[in-house]
Amino acid sequence: MYGPGDVRVIDVPDPRIEAPTDAILRTVVACVCGSDLHPYHSMRPNPDGASMGHEMIGVVEEVGAEVATVRPGDVVIVPFVWSCGVCDFCREGLQTSCRIGGVGGGQQRTGGAQAEYRRAPLADGTLYRLDVDENDERMPGLLTLSDVYATGYHAALMGGAGPGRTVTVIGDGAVGLLSVLAARQLGSERIILMGRHEVRTDLGRRYGATDVVPERGEEGIAAVRDLTGGDGTHVVIDAVGHLPAYEQALAVVRPGGAVSRVGVPQYTEGPIGRVQFNRNVSITGGAAPVRAYIERLLPGVLDGSVDPGAVFDRELPLDDAAEAYRLMDSREALKVLLRP
Amino acid sequence: MYGPGDVRVIDVPDPRIEAPTDAILRTVVACVCGSDLHPYHSMRPNPDGASMGHEMIGVVEEVGAEVATVRPGDVVIVPFVWSCGVCDFCREGLQTSCRIGGVGGGQQRTGGAQAEYRRAPLADGTLYRLDVDENDERMPGLLTLSDVYATGYHAALMGGAGPGRTVTVIGDGAVGLLSVLAARQLGSERIILMGRHEVRTDLGRRYGATDVVPERGEEGIAAVRDLTGGDGTHVVIDAVGHLPAYEQALAVVRPGGAVSRVGVPQYTEGPIGRVQFNRNVSITGGAAPVRAYIERLLPGVLDGSVDPGAVFDRELPLDDAAEAYRLMDSREALKVLLRP
Repeated sequence: MYGPGDVRVIDVPDPRIEAPTDAILRTVVACVCGSDLHPYHSMRPNPDGASMGHEMIGVVEEVGAEVATVRPGDVVIVPFVWSCGVCDFCREGLQTSCRIGGVGGGQQRTGGAQAEYRRAPLADGTLYRLDVDENDERMPGLLTLSDVYATGYHAALMGGAGPGRTVTVIGDGAVGLLSVLAARQLGSERIILMGRHEVRTDLGRRYGATDVVPERGEEGIAAVRDLTGGDGTHVVIDAVGHLPAYEQALAVVRPGGAVSRVGVPQYTEGPIGRVQFNRNVSITGGAAPVRAYIERLLPGVLDGSVDPGAVFDRELPLDDAAEAYRLMDSREALKVLLRP
Repeated sequence: MYGPGDVRVIDVPDPRIEAPTDAILRTVVACVCGSDLHPYHSMRPNPDGASMGHEMIGVVEEVGAEVATVRPGDVVIVPFVWSCGVCDFCREGLQTSCRIGGVGGGQQRTGGAQAEYRRAPLADGTLYRLDVDENDERMPGLLTLSDVYATGYHAALMGGAGPGRTVTVIGDGAVGLLSVLAARQLGSERIILMGRHEVRTDLGRRYGATDVVPERGEEGIAAVRDLTGGDGTHVVIDAVGHLPAYEQALAVVRPGGAVSRVGVPQYTEGPIGRVQFNRNVSITGGAAPVRAYIERLLPGVLDGSVDPGAVFDRELPLDDAAEAYRLMDSREALKVLLRP
């Protein structure tokens, strides 16, 4: 990506092992994330370009001398954050704060996943080996475990979704829809989805949304309150990341409840005073430690009891990545899967 | 209170039963709260005055026709929020959001606790009957159950204090010190108290603080980080309520941890973007539903295994309330107990 709206598919040198903990992966499937659209709108033009993408399933081509848990030929899920797997944060299941990798990548900057090949640092701690063939038809669902499904699960879990706990999800993008799925899985019976794209909200209903609120702003707030006896819901998931979504979340959360954020905040300051304090509302969530959730979410994807892969409504060859961005930006597509 | 620094003890008509759920109480002990100092600094002058105080133990003098659980002669703890005891929020233990009473009092405005007599609305749901004589020497400790001890407990509990969970407490006022006590009770072994008044921090050490950091701002942040291998603590309790304390809390909380606020926020906006998001830091706490905690905290006060009453370092007759405010405002006293 060279600037706003400027995506090009070019040839670059193949990645190679740089550290003994690296693996080289050949991409099986990758995709475009809603968060990739932020730079697509506003990145500062850069003549060197930025290598894009962070969601991927790959085949291991080569491993460094210290890699012990994967080997050439293995099909692996590649979580969107590199993690060593052995530091205290990794052991606690907060791989996003890994002392070597983590959010931002530390010293572990690599090319993006929207590519034919990619270097994966910290292979042992990051990659999750699958017992499936690279041509398996469940690839779209498995790919969601590298980010969006696990991110939605993080949102629902951190917000406290569960039996008897009502949930509002703000945003009908892939993460919002998979937050609905996760909240349902965790046992919430009443799930209100705020979104206005009917194709998407229909998928939300299939995932477990009991109510859909297409209105935004004050009207949307009033609608959620009407649906909840004036109180709002125990859990509100912000799967957008813009300040109005956060403010809307505060307005529809029940006293004693939680606003769980998985949309990357596009703001630094906001309401954080008595609006939360007097009502004992917590603010929680954050960058999802995807790696921590794969083990518990994988069985449902493999046995077909959940279908997170349905968020992919288009598939394009990697060469058409620019078109994939355009389709998602114009909301013609919900989420586009890319295959080299 | 008639304006900043202007506290007067005057005669007013005795309160009387206004609703069948009311009780009339005679004050045994009351006190001045750190939060009373906010209007003492900044209230808009009011020729009618504001009746002050919200912490109290009283003797029931008279009850309305519908009051069933207390009767004249009973000694009762009076939590700082009125609560019906039967609505869903009360049953959930969030009496601060009671549908009839709650924070702000709804329709239940009464005179303050710094008075000889007081009307208590929603007597059945609010008052906690004690099996002690009104002259019992444990009155100071019991009085802390109407606010500060239970508030400190709320802070520690909501923040997730417990075995293996390190804690920083910002603020050496009564709530801060009792947050230390509560964190220790909940099982936290490592508790860092940020405060600079040695008499107070000595009491904090007695309550369980393992480290005291007298520095503020950047120096204080660096000191806490030094004590924690650079990471900060799992739990940070803000027992102050001013924006710099909140910012300090964000700077010393460990990734994945929580900032728990019980100092009433004196700000409406503040940092709430990626500083929390990238590190999965939650913001929690709020106005404490004191009534929910009395039952579990009372035994320790009665058997002397905890001594929350030690936060009272002065005692004055109610007639000297103005002096009590002055002593607390000048930090000559930590917390002043008042007896009519």
